[in-house]
Amino acid sequence: MEGDLHMSIANYFPIWDKLDKEEQDRLERASVKRTVDKGTLIHHAASDCIGLLLVESGQLRAYMASDEGKEITLYRLFEQDICLFSASCIMRSIQFDISIEAEKETTFWIISPNVYHEIMEDSATLANYTSQIMATRFSEVMWLVEQVMWKSMDKRLADFLIEESNLEDSTSLKITHEKIAHHMGTAREVITRMLKYFQREGMVSLTRGTIEILDFNKLYNL
Amino acid sequence: MEGDLHMSIANYFPIWDKLDKEEQDRLERASVKRTVDKGTLIHHAASDCIGLLLVESGQLRAYMASDEGKEITLYRLFEQDICLFSASCIMRSIQFDISIEAEKETTFWIISPNVYHEIMEDSATLANYTSQIMATRFSEVMWLVEQVMWKSMDKRLADFLIEESNLEDSTSLKITHEKIAHHMGTAREVITRMLKYFQREGMVSLTRGTIEILDFNKLYNL
Repeated sequence: MEGDLHMSIANYFPIWDKLDKEEQDRLERASVKRTVDKGTLIHHAASDCIGLLLVESGQLRAYMASDEGKEITLYRLFEQDICLFSASCIMRSIQFDISIEAEKETTFWIISPNVYHEIMEDSATLANYTSQIMATRFSEVMWLVEQVMWKSMDKRLADFLIEESNLEDSTSLKITHEKIAHHMGTAREVITRMLKYFQREGMVSLTRGTIEILDFNKLYNL
Repeated sequence: MEGDLHMSIANYFPIWDKLDKEEQDRLERASVKRTVDKGTLIHHAASDCIGLLLVESGQLRAYMASDEGKEITLYRLFEQDICLFSASCIMRSIQFDISIEAEKETTFWIISPNVYHEIMEDSATLANYTSQIMATRFSEVMWLVEQVMWKSMDKRLADFLIEESNLEDSTSLKITHEKIAHHMGTAREVITRMLKYFQREGMVSLTRGTIEILDFNKLYNL
């Protein structure tokens, strides 16, 4: 059992062997495992600081929401990924709010933010690794900025459908136009209009609550 | 002279006293001062890794450019600010390109990225401080994402004109529509159209190469 726990937490930290025994023990003792259902809001913007999440299985979505209830997906977290911003209290310069929800049933470890912060204060190894995690998420957000700024909506929607199809391992996507709009930070009407255009072009077929991808090549070529 | 140098570099690091003497000495020896003219491109996306910039005076602009030559301003750096992304080689997870140009004549220190990286590897203090700098920039970019996603162009342009007027300490802005478009990541035509609307509403007066702000309150209220 102990061995199991050790294995699990250690797996997320390529730098584990550079931490000393005491630091390893403290991190292990500060970790608990949880499983949540699909749709669970795990971390809500401006709410408390629950801790670092280490995803064992499932899929999380990190998104930003506007005051008026609009949303945009910033990035997704999969098996082996670490979510830092659910523990934003460990770094006071993080002045923004991200929400995290489970897109599938998800099992993850939570590491107490206080313990993590204390170890990070003294360990250059853990501090530098934490920077790397942040830089990775920063890179994903910068990629998103590029997409939003320079890429037309049809190309972004084609990308989204292809990615979604890969994640679900299916050409038949059970997703509402509203939900797609929330991923992409736009209005439902914009998505509906674009999907109808895709349908006329023979790329997808729309039925109640389902989008069937008919022509992957054509979507790719967009 | 030595004392001067020490003062200058130390000023940028609130954690200076927590570094040991050797680390302080190495950082000092790895720093050189430079002054560049207004308009100088200091760091170009995907080019070499020049080092950390510590701004002593002047004003820098960090921006992202598209393949087609479009631009958007990500944030600005003023006196006392540290620029990390001109030393992106110190962190291999930084997978995006930012360009840095001087908007005014600017004097700054450059710290060699290799030396900085070596010290950061062993010093939790410097590693954590570097994380804080990154988190600050990340917060600024997230603010920008919010603006771009949820805020209409007229409000963003009003904000930009007010900010610009504060920075220049003048109600008369010598800036082309093209340049404003580059700051805001849009096309020149969009800016020209919006400025003409602002002019009709009595908020600004447009003359060749100059935008005169007439009604600050009305701009604020936008």
